[in-house]
Amino acid sequence: MTGPAPECLLEAFRAYEAALMADDVATLDELFAPGADTLRADGEGVLVGHDRIAEFRATRGGAPGRTLAEVHVRAVDQDSALVVAGTVLDRGGRGLQTQLWQRSADRPGHGGWRITAAHVSVSPPALDARVWRAVGDPLVPPSGDGPLTGQTVAVKDLYAVAGHAVGAGNPARLADAAPEPAHAGAVGRLLGAGAAVRGIARTDEFAYSLAGTNAHYGTPPNPAAPYRVPGGSSSGSASAVALGHATIGLGTDTGGSIRVPAAYQGLYGIRTTHGAVDRSGLLPLAADFDAVGWLTRSPALLAAVGDVLLPAGSSGGGDRLVFLPGLVDSAEPDVRSAVRGWLADAGATELGETLDDLDAWRAAFQTWQGFQAWQAHGPWLADRMDVLGPDVRSRFETAAAIDDDAAGRARALLDTARSRVLDLVGDRVLVLPSAPSVAPLAATGATPELRNATMRLTCLAALAGLPAVSLPVRTGDGLPAGVCLVAAPGRDRALLDLVQEDTRT
Amino acid sequence: MTGPAPECLLEAFRAYEAALMADDVATLDELFAPGADTLRADGEGVLVGHDRIAEFRATRGGAPGRTLAEVHVRAVDQDSALVVAGTVLDRGGRGLQTQLWQRSADRPGHGGWRITAAHVSVSPPALDARVWRAVGDPLVPPSGDGPLTGQTVAVKDLYAVAGHAVGAGNPARLADAAPEPAHAGAVGRLLGAGAAVRGIARTDEFAYSLAGTNAHYGTPPNPAAPYRVPGGSSSGSASAVALGHATIGLGTDTGGSIRVPAAYQGLYGIRTTHGAVDRSGLLPLAADFDAVGWLTRSPALLAAVGDVLLPAGSSGGGDRLVFLPGLVDSAEPDVRSAVRGWLADAGATELGETLDDLDAWRAAFQTWQGFQAWQAHGPWLADRMDVLGPDVRSRFETAAAIDDDAAGRARALLDTARSRVLDLVGDRVLVLPSAPSVAPLAATGATPELRNATMRLTCLAALAGLPAVSLPVRTGDGLPAGVCLVAAPGRDRALLDLVQEDTRT
Repeated sequence: MTGPAPECLLEAFRAYEAALMADDVATLDELFAPGADTLRADGEGVLVGHDRIAEFRATRGGAPGRTLAEVHVRAVDQDSALVVAGTVLDRGGRGLQTQLWQRSADRPGHGGWRITAAHVSVSPPALDARVWRAVGDPLVPPSGDGPLTGQTVAVKDLYAVAGHAVGAGNPARLADAAPEPAHAGAVGRLLGAGAAVRGIARTDEFAYSLAGTNAHYGTPPNPAAPYRVPGGSSSGSASAVALGHATIGLGTDTGGSIRVPAAYQGLYGIRTTHGAVDRSGLLPLAADFDAVGWLTRSPALLAAVGDVLLPAGSSGGGDRLVFLPGLVDSAEPDVRSAVRGWLADAGATELGETLDDLDAWRAAFQTWQGFQAWQAHGPWLADRMDVLGPDVRSRFETAAAIDDDAAGRARALLDTARSRVLDLVGDRVLVLPSAPSVAPLAATGATPELRNATMRLTCLAALAGLPAVSLPVRTGDGLPAGVCLVAAPGRDRALLDLVQEDTRT
Repeated sequence: MTGPAPECLLEAFRAYEAALMADDVATLDELFAPGADTLRADGEGVLVGHDRIAEFRATRGGAPGRTLAEVHVRAVDQDSALVVAGTVLDRGGRGLQTQLWQRSADRPGHGGWRITAAHVSVSPPALDARVWRAVGDPLVPPSGDGPLTGQTVAVKDLYAVAGHAVGAGNPARLADAAPEPAHAGAVGRLLGAGAAVRGIARTDEFAYSLAGTNAHYGTPPNPAAPYRVPGGSSSGSASAVALGHATIGLGTDTGGSIRVPAAYQGLYGIRTTHGAVDRSGLLPLAADFDAVGWLTRSPALLAAVGDVLLPAGSSGGGDRLVFLPGLVDSAEPDVRSAVRGWLADAGATELGETLDDLDAWRAAFQTWQGFQAWQAHGPWLADRMDVLGPDVRSRFETAAAIDDDAAGRARALLDTARSRVLDLVGDRVLVLPSAPSVAPLAATGATPELRNATMRLTCLAALAGLPAVSLPVRTGDGLPAGVCLVAAPGRDRALLDLVQEDTRT
């Protein structure tokens, strides 16, 4: 079962260790066996195939410095052995790596030994700063007992938490902001209902993105879809819930910022009726569209939070599910098929109508959103645009150039669009994909085309101030996607009831 | 190299998974190969031998619920295979396990398959609540630039951090305490010198322990000595530094609470001259002995913090190293030998004197410490002793029973002892073990005898209000231990200079 290390194995192992410390990528690539079966796994996920591993290694910028503390060799036979090594990291903490080494006489160098599988783990940092700005056990205790006792909230860094400044995902803004004297309205309500604040979660800068990336703090992980973006802008809140760090992710949805991360991470999420939930203490992006929202891992908790935050009553109206084939089919094939499957199971009714002006509405939505965003943040940003990451900066630059005429035309078109959407939805529930694709790979990110295709879907609820719930479905590949249910203003509770009853998910 | 899974392997793998979810310890024990070479490793460390693994499994209380997300089998031959499995945890986040399975025809059941080595890792929690009460990136930003710019501080939960209550390692105390209006003096000085507060670190309850355990929040890990206690009471600050979560661990030392965790975790630590550093905003344990202290991973940073917190000047006096063989030899053999080795390298001079009354001094120290601790905390604790963990409660119960006469006698003896210690040290540097043993195993913990043996050494500096620095050495087994340098009051900077010059460590 075990015995002395096979010949040359420890030399190969030490060569690997030395190459790792020197970030000698060529030697590392050489010491991992070629082929499609070679495997490297860590907390983020499993990489399969020499090429994907090499790709990962090329971009990670080296491994943390470390010293071997203990090396255990378990020889399987003369040509195979497992090496389990404990390391002490130069930065503090410990590392652990398990490697399956196999020898093949036809491979040059290192006695023919190569790693065919590796599992790497390290002591975690104090906090995952991609997900969190601050966390505690708890950070803020509940102020009362209630239906949310025992729940923990990840508060998007747009809401005031007393004693902490609002950072809005931007370090310069954070440095410039004073600690808040009081909790935001929604935060206070959750604390009063028994929930604790677990911490302040990262957001895309000023919430002006749907990708979930942040140029300053990194991209929160998506544990439901390794190596893919988390979705944003409520990215930290969503990842915190998916990681089990908090049970409730408090976020906002201006143009999809709850629904997109819910879809990408397999969560439940609600964007509430515009104006239905107290927005005091919330930093605006575009006040005409900004809505309070939250994410959970269960529909029951999604509704329980609604009981606390939403106005009482108004559960009326029908629960007839309808869909527009054009909207569903605008999604990529894997998402389309998952949503179509859900619609069939739910017995939803296909409508014959089309929304021919949808692209114009989406453009008008972006124009008015940008106009309001610049009104809100232009005074502070105007002489310090270089504090922004490139994507969000380019968005604010476009926003700054929108003149009153263009804004007015957009507003007028949106008023028309709103009437049309209200008519379309009526007292029914409109079903559409929450986002047109699964989460893009983090390495490539979201393209501007995908952003537009996404907003084309998400703007419908947002431009009309409608409540929308995203519930999780899976594509054929097992990746998360979202089904979005939209209803008339004020019918938030009806949607929450509907999702709780849905047993198809 | 790979291929279809060998016969019966996946059945055995699934049986293991099912047993894990049922916490069916008998089946789990059976599926791990018997013998001394079987291995199980996770972030805490490496367990070697079937018996130690079974011991661990018996006490951990089950594994978190999970679902298999991906299973990769790499057959080595017909009797050996590596299985790498990614899981999705019910609580959120992901898990990863790598198992080497090997088959032996003579083993009954599961086709003869057994796990001979396993590596387990899971998504970390939002924060390690054994180490931290709250953390941030940072929790409190610096208030200025200075020599500590870029450094991060783990603040023991006895110091005021503005906006947060002081919890003192006890949940009832935390719930009862109001947020602090301002930073403690030492915290403010560190922020002004450019350091950021990383977070508020756990402490043993009311700092009244040297073990580093806490009945409410768990035992912080000791990354320098896996499965051993971290030492206390500045346990969280010390573990935070050893884990690389913070660079400076701000703590206190009443009777060894800096020196013991420094020794157990291989860190540098200083207990400052009594009264030399501002104690405003610090919750007392025993005011006559309480001293500000800190821990670091480098002697240079230990001194840099001293430059910020210590009064200027007073670096005078000699640097002659002396030791009392009776003190050194009171340590356990492994520690004695490590300290003896250091003394020999340093060319320290053996003194002929003995401290015959040391046990009486230690007892008097504990009496006066208890008397003052009850004065400080008795009014709040008296009618709620059940909020304390058993060890600290028993200590406070003893303290409550100390009458004025007993306290007075202790105080008188301490005054005598103080004069004697000041004479002994003079302008020299007295060297002794920081603690008489390496860190005890967490499973067994520190005995009352070890606590007394420890305080017998640590009380010398404490009863006389002397500065003391602990620097790391290694035992023959590679475990951390501490060498303690003690000097006359006010000679803190002289000790820090000495440690920086020491190249033996």
